Amino acid sequence: MNTPAFRNWQSVQEEVLRRIHAREWKPGDLIPNEADLALEFGCARTTVNRALRALADAGLLDRRRKAGTRVAAQPVAKATLDIAVIRKEVEARGQSYGYHLIARAIAVPPVAISAAMRTNPDSNLLHILALHLADSAPYALEDRWINSTVVPDALDQGFQSVSANEWLLMHAPYTHGDIAFSAQAASSADAQSLGCAEHSALFAIDRLTWDKGVSVTKVRLLFSPGYQVRTIL
Amino acid sequence: MNTPAFRNWQSVQEEVLRRIHAREWKPGDLIPNEADLALEFGCARTTVNRALRALADAGLLDRRRKAGTRVAAQPVAKATLDIAVIRKEVEARGQSYGYHLIARAIAVPPVAISAAMRTNPDSNLLHILALHLADSAPYALEDRWINSTVVPDALDQGFQSVSANEWLLMHAPYTHGDIAFSAQAASSADAQSLGCAEHSALFAIDRLTWDKGVSVTKVRLLFSPGYQVRTIL
Repeated sequence: MNTPAFRNWQSVQEEVLRRIHAREWKPGDLIPNEADLALEFGCARTTVNRALRALADAGLLDRRRKAGTRVAAQPVAKATLDIAVIRKEVEARGQSYGYHLIARAIAVPPVAISAAMRTNPDSNLLHILALHLADSAPYALEDRWINSTVVPDALDQGFQSVSANEWLLMHAPYTHGDIAFSAQAASSADAQSLGCAEHSALFAIDRLTWDKGVSVTKVRLLFSPGYQVRTIL
Repeated sequence: MNTPAFRNWQSVQEEVLRRIHAREWKPGDLIPNEADLALEFGCARTTVNRALRALADAGLLDRRRKAGTRVAAQPVAKATLDIAVIRKEVEARGQSYGYHLIARAIAVPPVAISAAMRTNPDSNLLHILALHLADSAPYALEDRWINSTVVPDALDQGFQSVSANEWLLMHAPYTHGDIAFSAQAASSADAQSLGCAEHSALFAIDRLTWDKGVSVTKVRLLFSPGYQVRTIL
């Protein structure tokens, strides 16, 4: 074989990816086994294994214990998005972060909220409305409900200087969550908070987290017009 | 130790995740080494290694060869989005897929497109405008430019019945790409194609793929109002 030796799993992965993208290995094709690839690439079999496992995790290969490894027949690209604390996200853009609490209240939430959070429709929850700023301009509006029976410490927080976004990440454990991305038209109140035109197209992130089957918090983040989430494929 | 034996890396990962979320292991904390964890969990060290590596890949742990493994100080949640062929996405929702070509032309693109694709501003590219349908209702509008010098076979395609979205995935190799998610107000033409009100807030996916430093295709997908991308955290 003339293939040069591959020193690490990343270079093996790159070569495998190249063959898939170049259709040398086509969707559905059985690829050589790990021992043969290790021989061809001049590397350890564990190196090949690490490279193939990462590609399987990414949905590009189908690995079956007995049947071998095939190129995935229905290629699905996976985009990984980093969901950071908003303060960190703003600072990572090289902008100065600001925070402004608009409202904090203990209230009975709308039925859509209590239904999603599976709380008693009559129960009070902690409601926080706050604005995140980048270089003093509105960046994102945070509209959050906190299940204060699960996170009682939150009731002691004024959220005047530290956002609920940041405080909860450090203090409220959760076991899992779901997240949705969508486009929303700015309501009159949203538009006033964000300083944009009513009905502007706003990027929205809705997140609901759970701790062992009980909801912790439900939040909608509405970002100022022009906001983009970018990642590589 | 009273910890029950953990049979597989997923159960080890779940327990490590529980300790991080419960702040038993706090951000910045050095966690026990793999050998000690294997002893505590009653499993092989390779099982612990697999669990920790996956958590490091997810940004929850920082692993240093000599310095050991710490809980990440700046927790960043990672959301993984599946980017499937639109036909598959519609079918996965249990809806029937439809496709309608609106326009196919060879044309000089707007400067913003040729600049992003790094093609000669005077060069012709293949332009495709098409509508994807779910249960006969507009689902997504595809506005795509194809670098036909890189994918000459695309010139032979009418894209009357198979979408460029699907055809390219099967026929045009690419080495990398970037993707952006945003909210866009529907133009008058977008609104007409999608059958929605002008200025509606539309979820947009912009994607640009490259093959060894040369652009392959640039596409904007605009989804009908109400579209959401959901995933778990």
